[in-house]
Amino acid sequence: MRTIEWDEEREAVRLIDQTQLPRAYKIEVCERVEELIRAIKELKVRGAPALGVAGALGVVLACKNAATAEAIEIEKAVKQLENARPTAVNLSYGVNRAFNAAKRGETPEEMKIYALAEAKRIIDEDIAVNKKIGEYGSALLDDGDVVLTHCNAGRLACVDWGTALGVIRTAIMHGKRIEVIACETRPLNQGSRLTAWELMQDKIPVTLITDSMSAAVMRECKVDKVLVGADRVVKEGVINKIGTYMHAVVAKAHGIPFYVAAPISSFDLERSYKDVEIEQRSPRELIYCANVQLAPEEVKVYNPAFDFTPFELIAGVITEKGVLRSPPSPSTSPSY
Amino acid sequence: MRTIEWDEEREAVRLIDQTQLPRAYKIEVCERVEELIRAIKELKVRGAPALGVAGALGVVLACKNAATAEAIEIEKAVKQLENARPTAVNLSYGVNRAFNAAKRGETPEEMKIYALAEAKRIIDEDIAVNKKIGEYGSALLDDGDVVLTHCNAGRLACVDWGTALGVIRTAIMHGKRIEVIACETRPLNQGSRLTAWELMQDKIPVTLITDSMSAAVMRECKVDKVLVGADRVVKEGVINKIGTYMHAVVAKAHGIPFYVAAPISSFDLERSYKDVEIEQRSPRELIYCANVQLAPEEVKVYNPAFDFTPFELIAGVITEKGVLRSPPSPSTSPSY
Repeated sequence: MRTIEWDEEREAVRLIDQTQLPRAYKIEVCERVEELIRAIKELKVRGAPALGVAGALGVVLACKNAATAEAIEIEKAVKQLENARPTAVNLSYGVNRAFNAAKRGETPEEMKIYALAEAKRIIDEDIAVNKKIGEYGSALLDDGDVVLTHCNAGRLACVDWGTALGVIRTAIMHGKRIEVIACETRPLNQGSRLTAWELMQDKIPVTLITDSMSAAVMRECKVDKVLVGADRVVKEGVINKIGTYMHAVVAKAHGIPFYVAAPISSFDLERSYKDVEIEQRSPRELIYCANVQLAPEEVKVYNPAFDFTPFELIAGVITEKGVLRSPPSPSTSPSY
Repeated sequence: MRTIEWDEEREAVRLIDQTQLPRAYKIEVCERVEELIRAIKELKVRGAPALGVAGALGVVLACKNAATAEAIEIEKAVKQLENARPTAVNLSYGVNRAFNAAKRGETPEEMKIYALAEAKRIIDEDIAVNKKIGEYGSALLDDGDVVLTHCNAGRLACVDWGTALGVIRTAIMHGKRIEVIACETRPLNQGSRLTAWELMQDKIPVTLITDSMSAAVMRECKVDKVLVGADRVVKEGVINKIGTYMHAVVAKAHGIPFYVAAPISSFDLERSYKDVEIEQRSPRELIYCANVQLAPEEVKVYNPAFDFTPFELIAGVITEKGVLRSPPSPSTSPSY
């Protein structure tokens, strides 16, 4: 099945529970908006484009769950949904599109129908957009390339094809031999759990490394390109999973092109990175690994989920409209 | 107790089992050289200077365990000991010093006595050397500095005081306020398990981050210096825990001085980094965390335990004889 979809029969959202992978492939069914909000907060569904769809389908649930058409009640649920996670712009993008559509209805039932139609449009668009990103991005990859990626910008982060991994899938579909180096992506190991799993499902060659090995493998000339997704593209650069900036700095130092694949729906160009809330997650994510204690209970932890990478470190942002190239840097010394 | 020591009564090596920290503080007693070799392989004792002591005390056990003084028998055990781990030079340094001393004896008992005397000298030297490294290094730190470190180059890596963390202890002893950022150090989390634990024991302020956050915290101007240990100093630079090179590259990009603290016994200046065997460890270290599965069972993993950092990225190597400054780079473009 797709990463996230609408279950017509049960009138519910069905999603692959990504916290269970790769140990188990389990489907979570959310019949109420509160359940979906919890699934988003617990990262059962994650990845900017998939969060856009989750936001839109959440509006459908909010309308379905509403006893009356009182805007105030639905609006409250919609607000909670939008704030379930702060950093990826797609969540509020999906919520707003579906909610604006819903407002055309007069009863909760009508609102639900309008929201669902819009959510389905977002789902279809996501797949089409991924395929276009794949085409534009594939042209940047050469036969035989080894591509390093971080976190999961694959089909599990979207509805079906993926952004960064969609580019790799498209390149392979066009007959190019591509190998992937997946960084495990601490602290939640989306690289180990999701990227390795989904690439192995598709029999795409993948090697797992720790995040800290990226510079060493670049020095050993084992990486041709770096390719990641984005949670939000702002006016000075890209906000993405913590560690992205590190890979960009070391790629620059080794002369390796660093690409970002992201749909236009992740763009928020009027905003500065300084005005985007970077989600701070629980210290437990570093102190424990599942239930195994790794660090002293009381240790102070800094755990931002995302970081910012300025455009001067990025060779191109691959979108469904083409590849956005960085403007040449005004000075020769990097300002990062 | 010290990280590793000789138990006079039991004629055995006692060591803190570092694989149990921070969950439990357990002492391992090795009465036979085979037990000590296993403890080294399983990283119950680790860290270059501590491995030097383990090597020397292992020779004592080999002499004690020998039924006859036949050089061949003791030599076989000594060889196995020396090869227990390949990358840190101190292990063979400690083994060779104790074994050369042992050769002055004619019976196993005499050999044991000579080896033990030499091992004790190495232990005393290690503490004295750490204190001197601390003094030289302390002069490089300013009051109020935030120092980022990787892996554990603390007292748990030595006999007592530590190399990189010994510098921090000395600076604090001299009244400087120092805070530490400890990188968790994947895949075995020596930063989370050991560095965080030993600094908290001493009430030194420490914040734990993932390895991949180092560039982001540097960009946020939260790091004044980087300070790490070394497993081997070769003619072109330093071999240390995987991830060290990454921190060095990003420190350079942010204009942050990167220091290495290492005793002269870790120097192997006639050798090139190309001729040093980099220990490749089990894929299990990335696929599992304790017994929790993080990645697909069959995923291909690249897991070198160490990487190489060239001198041009290093502001100074702090030794017991003073601070070795990098020669100015012959070209302006970095060759890493």
